[in-house]
Amino acid sequence: MEEYKEIMQNKKGKVDVTPIANFFREEVKQQITKNCWKPRVVAFLTSDDQGAIDYSKWTKLACQKDGIEFILKRVERVDLEDLIIEANNDSCVHGILVYYPVFGGMMDSYLQDVVSPTKDIEGLSTQNRFNLYHNIRFMDGETATKKCVIPCTPLAMVKIIDNLGIYDKSLAMGEHLKGKTVTIVNRSEIVGRPLAAMLANDGAIVYSIDINGIIIFQSGKRHGTIKMSETNVTREEAISKSDILILGVPSPNYKVNSDLIQDGTIVINFAGCLNVDESIQEKSILVPTIGKVTIAMLERNLLRLFNNQISNK
Amino acid sequence: MEEYKEIMQNKKGKVDVTPIANFFREEVKQQITKNCWKPRVVAFLTSDDQGAIDYSKWTKLACQKDGIEFILKRVERVDLEDLIIEANNDSCVHGILVYYPVFGGMMDSYLQDVVSPTKDIEGLSTQNRFNLYHNIRFMDGETATKKCVIPCTPLAMVKIIDNLGIYDKSLAMGEHLKGKTVTIVNRSEIVGRPLAAMLANDGAIVYSIDINGIIIFQSGKRHGTIKMSETNVTREEAISKSDILILGVPSPNYKVNSDLIQDGTIVINFAGCLNVDESIQEKSILVPTIGKVTIAMLERNLLRLFNNQISNK
Repeated sequence: MEEYKEIMQNKKGKVDVTPIANFFREEVKQQITKNCWKPRVVAFLTSDDQGAIDYSKWTKLACQKDGIEFILKRVERVDLEDLIIEANNDSCVHGILVYYPVFGGMMDSYLQDVVSPTKDIEGLSTQNRFNLYHNIRFMDGETATKKCVIPCTPLAMVKIIDNLGIYDKSLAMGEHLKGKTVTIVNRSEIVGRPLAAMLANDGAIVYSIDINGIIIFQSGKRHGTIKMSETNVTREEAISKSDILILGVPSPNYKVNSDLIQDGTIVINFAGCLNVDESIQEKSILVPTIGKVTIAMLERNLLRLFNNQISNK
Repeated sequence: MEEYKEIMQNKKGKVDVTPIANFFREEVKQQITKNCWKPRVVAFLTSDDQGAIDYSKWTKLACQKDGIEFILKRVERVDLEDLIIEANNDSCVHGILVYYPVFGGMMDSYLQDVVSPTKDIEGLSTQNRFNLYHNIRFMDGETATKKCVIPCTPLAMVKIIDNLGIYDKSLAMGEHLKGKTVTIVNRSEIVGRPLAAMLANDGAIVYSIDINGIIIFQSGKRHGTIKMSETNVTREEAISKSDILILGVPSPNYKVNSDLIQDGTIVINFAGCLNVDESIQEKSILVPTIGKVTIAMLERNLLRLFNNQISNK
């Protein structure tokens, strides 16, 4: 994107992702207007967690602005499962959004799978992830009319990297990131692992780091498959040889030592707090938050699922 | 069971669950012999975790003794997903067992869902749990020929409680534990929550405790449904009013203060370490480990799934 030309040439500075978010939201808005669509999202908020409350406000505001009917429900967490099932069965609801944490831990993973994959605008269900990891592009098998959605935070990350001009489009599909090294500090099933798989699928070598250690993700022999492997590379070595460093540790105490980061590295932070000192922008390209693009991807996923649903009729 | 008569009358002592395990294993063995069945399990071990290694030995030994072909494979964790998919597609494999931890965290939950529910002898897949929580008894919907399996550790727990004579069979189905209060310190999706749901379904009031707080589980208005509710009851109050206390905190540092526990309470421990002082047996009924019954339930689940599979042909 034109907006980032100077930063990318200087190989340092701070990136505001608003133009990227606006680009995709504009696309969504136009599609809704042109087709006179009335997509409806039901969103469930159960907690007093400030992060969840803020996120619910932003998503509601953005969706409403872009022509999406957004019903935000404040509910008791003990009633949530039944309410999700009700929304699954309600043909007037096209997308379902749950603000986590609800109970925390594995019960929340369970709830992610109670949301029907056909309405899962966040793309968090196990089926969605399984499809992503196995390069299954359609939800309806060989009929191949209903495209899968992709988890919205990793999808936002890929769109940001693409719009910063990092993808080498002169190379073949699947090789746009060939020769690039990426480190992702987070291996959750919500962001870190799907993202590692997506970037590996585009040709990068990805070091995926969590508290249990490091795993390398790269593209497998067959197109679209991912190969995981063990490594002796340390966390420090991985970070210092990375062209792209992605940080998502939900703790204000976690900071990567700036000395480890090469000049010109693209540092993308998606944790609620900054996992690196802000001064890194003096020698590298810092993307401090990505939330606006995540919301745009949520809208984009909704339209895809809406489209799948109306094509049933 | 006759073996436990004295302990149950005295309302104190230590329970060895071996007779319960043997009873169910004998049943499995007879069924296999009578029908000339050749059920095959493939089990995957990826880690050097001593608990996992020991458990793999015990399961192999028990299964082989009872007429089950048990193929234990030592594999790299990065290859596991592909190997599970291979076993899913291999019609000569009737049951799949994975020894956790593999990667730890949510990646392990993901792997539990890669195992086909039709071969999931541990009963850990999301579909199995969803069916359990919603009282769905069959995997094939209205055809109703293929019974679901139940996660094997909670199932073992219910069988132990039943065989100690706690269920009041003079009451109607769904009320066998009416009037009983149970506290479960663990709310994992593998043991604590399914168990809470099962005991609530049998009429108990269940306090489910984890690091995030307490939730009450009891039977809902419609038969087979579960009602969750919030509570102000403290951890100490819940424990001290319980007829049955179930402990599953995987830390040697976690010990419930024995003074909180009523005389005659049944204390069942399923953590790898004892979450209460052993001297509790001087005033209560202590079941210090349940692993042998869990393995028997694994075999029982296998036969159910084997039966479902051969009825396809």
